[in-house]
Amino acid sequence: MAMDAISVIRTKRDRGELSDEQIDWVIDAYTRGEVADEQMSALAMAILLNGMNRREIARWTAAMIASGERMDFSSLSRPTADKHSTGGVGDKITLPLAPLVAACGAAVPQLSGRGLGHTGGTLDKLESIPGWRALLSNEEMLRVLDEVGAVICAAGDGLAPADKKLYALRDVTGTVEAIPLIASSIMSKKIAEGTGSLVLDVKVGSGAFMKTLEDARELASTMVGLGTDHGVRTVALLTDMSTPLGLTAGNALEVRESLEVLAGGGPKDVVDLTLALAREMLDAAGLTDADPAKALADGSAMDVWRRMISAQGGDPDAPLPTSREQHVVKAPASGTLTRLDAYDVGVAAWRLGAGRARKEDPVQAAAGIELHAKPGDQVTEGQPLLTLHTDTPDRFPYALQALEGSYDITADAAAFSPSPVVLERIA
Amino acid sequence: MAMDAISVIRTKRDRGELSDEQIDWVIDAYTRGEVADEQMSALAMAILLNGMNRREIARWTAAMIASGERMDFSSLSRPTADKHSTGGVGDKITLPLAPLVAACGAAVPQLSGRGLGHTGGTLDKLESIPGWRALLSNEEMLRVLDEVGAVICAAGDGLAPADKKLYALRDVTGTVEAIPLIASSIMSKKIAEGTGSLVLDVKVGSGAFMKTLEDARELASTMVGLGTDHGVRTVALLTDMSTPLGLTAGNALEVRESLEVLAGGGPKDVVDLTLALAREMLDAAGLTDADPAKALADGSAMDVWRRMISAQGGDPDAPLPTSREQHVVKAPASGTLTRLDAYDVGVAAWRLGAGRARKEDPVQAAAGIELHAKPGDQVTEGQPLLTLHTDTPDRFPYALQALEGSYDITADAAAFSPSPVVLERIA
Repeated sequence: MAMDAISVIRTKRDRGELSDEQIDWVIDAYTRGEVADEQMSALAMAILLNGMNRREIARWTAAMIASGERMDFSSLSRPTADKHSTGGVGDKITLPLAPLVAACGAAVPQLSGRGLGHTGGTLDKLESIPGWRALLSNEEMLRVLDEVGAVICAAGDGLAPADKKLYALRDVTGTVEAIPLIASSIMSKKIAEGTGSLVLDVKVGSGAFMKTLEDARELASTMVGLGTDHGVRTVALLTDMSTPLGLTAGNALEVRESLEVLAGGGPKDVVDLTLALAREMLDAAGLTDADPAKALADGSAMDVWRRMISAQGGDPDAPLPTSREQHVVKAPASGTLTRLDAYDVGVAAWRLGAGRARKEDPVQAAAGIELHAKPGDQVTEGQPLLTLHTDTPDRFPYALQALEGSYDITADAAAFSPSPVVLERIA
Repeated sequence: MAMDAISVIRTKRDRGELSDEQIDWVIDAYTRGEVADEQMSALAMAILLNGMNRREIARWTAAMIASGERMDFSSLSRPTADKHSTGGVGDKITLPLAPLVAACGAAVPQLSGRGLGHTGGTLDKLESIPGWRALLSNEEMLRVLDEVGAVICAAGDGLAPADKKLYALRDVTGTVEAIPLIASSIMSKKIAEGTGSLVLDVKVGSGAFMKTLEDARELASTMVGLGTDHGVRTVALLTDMSTPLGLTAGNALEVRESLEVLAGGGPKDVVDLTLALAREMLDAAGLTDADPAKALADGSAMDVWRRMISAQGGDPDAPLPTSREQHVVKAPASGTLTRLDAYDVGVAAWRLGAGRARKEDPVQAAAGIELHAKPGDQVTEGQPLLTLHTDTPDRFPYALQALEGSYDITADAAAFSPSPVVLERIA
């Protein structure tokens, strides 16, 4: 049967199921430019509003994988383990996690992205290290992975080009928030990358993409199903993103905090989540005897970090950039900090220069926010609550505006109910 | 508040109401090219699936009117009356109707379109008259209207350019079938055109855009509301399009049938609908004493037709083109013809060359279908049922394929229940 874009769009618009042939055709024709952007965006909106079933999502993902090359890690002597986070505020976990899991015996190929909006990007964070470069050829990536055990770099253009094109389109057409499209976008890249196992960190809460546990569960189980169908051992943790992770949000600030974790210290929530994800990755890779807590304590994870940074041109001993200007937000009252909103802190850090409004914007390495208290902590009136960092102090008012109403301090300590870092596990 | 396309799309995607400011902004920015096609198509799909309320549709229409120029007929000595049909098979009513209503004292500015798909276009039909041209400047149009009383021509580029751009986009993105967008598209052009009164012929049935009476009612009452809100006296008739109108579908074939009506003859359904619409137009224009039946009988409508065709370069006495090849479909049995499907006949005429698959395709003036019986008629086995006309006989098999199963002949005459031409009136 001859295919055309309008009949595919109409099928989904009228709440029908797309056939395998329709999905294969539309992804291929879109990649080749035969289906126009305005047709694909209408289809994306119809998918967002009318959904896709598991078969459709699986086929859509397979078609996006088939649009490009697949990598092959079978030449490596170690089992591969990858992790993907759906993005949050202060989520620097990839930085300590990749060298930690490598120190425990797995190969960690971490293809990462840049921040957009209020969420930070792993590559932006690492680029605050003098000399470090994100772009590697496939051959360089394989070599670093083989020699060091962990690599964090930008995904090449050859992996799932259909997804690359569709992601950019969704970004400008209000069609990002479609669970079938989010799931297929993430999983097509991870499956094409060729990892043997994958742990998904699906964030839930104000600072995350998924605001409710219900949406996060649906996304997680969709992705676990897709991974499993393609022979990738896949596990998802639903983790709290109602408040920032750790005590920093910003590029160099988060690298500094990651180094504390690799040195055996660091904030409890960051350490707990790093270890929880490391254990899942090692389990999925079949390395059930590994002891990631020991690898943090004995410095072996830090050793891998230093080699990993050096292998990509970075100087692990170079001082990290610091901000030209700071502004301290003081606690307006004494009591218990019961809430510190992840989204508001993320927006404030973004406005200080840690993030970008458009893909082509630069980021400030030193901009961001330091937290001096976390929800559950006692604070005293006048003590520092947050320190804002930027190189461009005219941004302070906009950041402070974002922080208005972002926290609660109450005299009643019982008003605070602590939330675990890991909320659920889906396998 | 600063506007951006994504927030407008998100509002409608999330089932919100678009504000007046959002609608004004998005239509203006789309016309200027600041909102991209892929953004507008995502918005159109969200509107199709989530709807717009009456205020939103009214504002959307007003914004499309404001995107271009408005015509002004106030210099004319006669009241203006316009008609719009949502399109059907064999719908040549504009051809006898415009000169008829002009002969009764109104000025009829009939901006018409070309056919697309299985429905014919008024301009394509008139272009089968040697010499006749559809394109007039605004000044020429006003002059013909003033001197003759009726003009049928293409809409200029200056009227509702936002609609022109959006219509072409909807056509390729599966977003044509949205009642708010259909209603605002039709009404923005008619209101910008500046008519004082408007009669809408909303077709219902297999050969129409609206397949159900319910959808047709919703479209009609939306358009009547829009016209009324803009000070245009507007009435809608819902009319039957389950079978072709009259005995012809095709360009020159329909001109010939229109001439029969203007000469006082012609098929009963065409005459009845022409008179029903003429009476509504004359009433809406305040000419309640006019007698359109007399104007058909005494030749005054034919006089206006001849002057109208001549004024646009056409020769009213030139012979109309006839087809090079014919194929007769014979009745396979004797009995009552209980059904002859409008859509199937429309598709067959289209395939014979009467219509176009793409906007830039030419049409054949002589191609089309003649009906030798209408539902309710008795037929005898072997008598001609349909005559197919084309200049390219290799098209016959494709047309015959479209006609498979398009009619029913039964021995039981009681199986046929006649449908009135006018089903409902909405004012």
